[in-house]
Amino acid sequence: MPASRSKTPKRNAFYAQSGGVTAVINASAAGVIDACRKHKDRIGTLYAGRDGIVGALTEDLIDTGKESAAAIKALRHTPSGAFGSARYKLKDLDKDRARYERLIEVFRAHDIGYFFYNGGNDSMDTAHKVSLIGDQMGYHVTCVGVPKTVDNDLPVTDCCPGFGSVAKYIAVSTLEASFDVASMARTSTKVFILEVMGRHAGWIAAAGGLAARKAGDPPHIILFPEIAFDRERFLARVKETVETKGYCVIVASEGTKDAEGRFLADMGTRDAFGHVQLGGVAPTLAAMVKDGLGYKYHWALADYLQRSARHIASKVDVEQAYAVGRAAVEFALAGQNAVMPVIVRKSSKPYRWTIGSVPIAEVANKEKMVPRHYITEDGFGITAAGRRYLEPLIAGEAYPPYRAGLPDYVRLRNARVRKRLKTTFVI
Amino acid sequence: MPASRSKTPKRNAFYAQSGGVTAVINASAAGVIDACRKHKDRIGTLYAGRDGIVGALTEDLIDTGKESAAAIKALRHTPSGAFGSARYKLKDLDKDRARYERLIEVFRAHDIGYFFYNGGNDSMDTAHKVSLIGDQMGYHVTCVGVPKTVDNDLPVTDCCPGFGSVAKYIAVSTLEASFDVASMARTSTKVFILEVMGRHAGWIAAAGGLAARKAGDPPHIILFPEIAFDRERFLARVKETVETKGYCVIVASEGTKDAEGRFLADMGTRDAFGHVQLGGVAPTLAAMVKDGLGYKYHWALADYLQRSARHIASKVDVEQAYAVGRAAVEFALAGQNAVMPVIVRKSSKPYRWTIGSVPIAEVANKEKMVPRHYITEDGFGITAAGRRYLEPLIAGEAYPPYRAGLPDYVRLRNARVRKRLKTTFVI
Repeated sequence: MPASRSKTPKRNAFYAQSGGVTAVINASAAGVIDACRKHKDRIGTLYAGRDGIVGALTEDLIDTGKESAAAIKALRHTPSGAFGSARYKLKDLDKDRARYERLIEVFRAHDIGYFFYNGGNDSMDTAHKVSLIGDQMGYHVTCVGVPKTVDNDLPVTDCCPGFGSVAKYIAVSTLEASFDVASMARTSTKVFILEVMGRHAGWIAAAGGLAARKAGDPPHIILFPEIAFDRERFLARVKETVETKGYCVIVASEGTKDAEGRFLADMGTRDAFGHVQLGGVAPTLAAMVKDGLGYKYHWALADYLQRSARHIASKVDVEQAYAVGRAAVEFALAGQNAVMPVIVRKSSKPYRWTIGSVPIAEVANKEKMVPRHYITEDGFGITAAGRRYLEPLIAGEAYPPYRAGLPDYVRLRNARVRKRLKTTFVI
Repeated sequence: MPASRSKTPKRNAFYAQSGGVTAVINASAAGVIDACRKHKDRIGTLYAGRDGIVGALTEDLIDTGKESAAAIKALRHTPSGAFGSARYKLKDLDKDRARYERLIEVFRAHDIGYFFYNGGNDSMDTAHKVSLIGDQMGYHVTCVGVPKTVDNDLPVTDCCPGFGSVAKYIAVSTLEASFDVASMARTSTKVFILEVMGRHAGWIAAAGGLAARKAGDPPHIILFPEIAFDRERFLARVKETVETKGYCVIVASEGTKDAEGRFLADMGTRDAFGHVQLGGVAPTLAAMVKDGLGYKYHWALADYLQRSARHIASKVDVEQAYAVGRAAVEFALAGQNAVMPVIVRKSSKPYRWTIGSVPIAEVANKEKMVPRHYITEDGFGITAAGRRYLEPLIAGEAYPPYRAGLPDYVRLRNARVRKRLKTTFVI
């Protein structure tokens, strides 16, 4: 491709959001849109998929050109997926060939030469396959991933847009709830449990540890999926903490599991990607505390609140989300295909970062766990190294504008593009 | 009293925080402290009770004079109870006489002539009784209440410090989670439930309704304790909403109950005030939705996060909390006894308010419910009148300062005062 770059004909582009949304995925969208608008000589219309890849399969495209500059700017402070996202996984090429071919058919009908896919591990796998099948079908599409996941579990990149903001939300919430419990523990709640997201990797739970300014501060116990849960050790630590501190604050990952790999709270259902749907670790732990120690407890389950909390987003995270969106377009125009922009850390104190690039195949379907040396030896906290890694990611506030006491989030027009195919596709 | 005011000898004062803490109860503490410091000619030392009234009973007093001006200023942006609060109810005079007498004994030992009690309905009852028994025992104490409760259920006052901030937190969280669910509903979660506080009064649930900028916006269903819950009507509305909007967002009060007055989720335990401890409405509703309609659901339980969320406090609430603290001291020095400052609304648009005064006896042990005309006829939303009442209370942001990505909340020195009594008191 690079050889023919200068005389590449102008082609359209397609952007889709995938998987669980975040507080800053729309900042990435804004980055993609701004960069496409900047390069009008080379990119025609930037389409977005309504409800992510589903919009491509059903030829339900949105013309982002119909959105005002003010609306696109507002995306930078609006959480969730402004075009709609989807939990919809394309499987292996041999099993799901019809779907991949349909994608290429839609791309061909709308002269789409660039595909920007904003998602996590699964989505990078899809982007990779689309680039392969396009070439097999004689229709070249430049596919560039845009990293996104609150779970922070993508490899290679130092961190992942979406994580910094949920990390800040959990750290702030842990700090605030700890102040609450501390002030009432003498006559009321002794044990407080905050259940946080993180299916397999404990990055979000680790972020709760930032609430402790110094050793001994709450949270007193963090439960990571990476550390096998042991009921007796847990209860002993809760008891010791209540006896010495007067109360105990616990941050528990939804993915907490025992030595045999059994999740503490397996709801028994599976999502579209085949992942077990979790939830209910906090009440399970609370029941253990009640039965085993008899302490009064409270627990909170932040659920979607944590990943949509744009009101307390990390400024660093917003900036990185926007930067990877812009970089994806620049990479594509520079002839890079099947790559993904990554965050490269240059230094932690002061925090400095830049954007790099990695082949998508190195990222697809891989998960980055919290390394053991970020977790204290007893398995219940984060180390100085862990803190050094995490702390810069929650730095800075990026408050949205407010109207009548509420964040003034934008809802896009999302103008529908006229279909060109006679065939339909049922999801 | 007024006649002898000008020659009243200088006496000490005592301040205590009571019941569940809020994001702004420390702003009230700052108001009390600032006003006492301003009137050094008439008020000697302002003591605070460590862990509220428990600190008075056990003669565990804190000398607030040891705190720097900077620390007191920082109280205005620090959530929870800086001196410790307590769930500890003094019962009727005839049943609990020893405790009341002990209080007066401690007050006498430390020459305490002013008692500022920062709490809700129960605490106002206690303050009233202390003023009565002091006079019976020949030791006059001027008792002034300082209103505080996230539940907003105190009568007479237009609103109650603590409520505006939890209202803002719930409105913002509902808005953000709604954006999240809307963007993923096509292939993922269809029904989202946020369980909020509010034991008997649905004020906090009502605040979730502020997230809707216009008719039809989420939240689509609000469940109030004031409206009898009916399973069939609820499920029919969920179904209709999912079918027309694609998803359904529900804000449910923890106090939601059926026509027979049975709470949807009674955990079966009781707190120190004899109130049933609630929790679990959201999972109960989620199970109904799953069993009755089969939709994919998610739910969140904000618990303490909602009442400690100083990071998203209402500016109006912070100002009112500070103002009632200051007013309490001014009232006491003006010779008013057994009174409580109240917020008086002068107009809603633009919002203007002032501070009034009410005899504590008119407030004690009474609860103000959400009036029926604030709730839509179908019982599932708030009316324009409800919105007109609520909206000004969440106006304005009052961000705390940040350090390393986290709010810079203050921890006081809380210097212990030497005991003067030889007797001890066991709680």
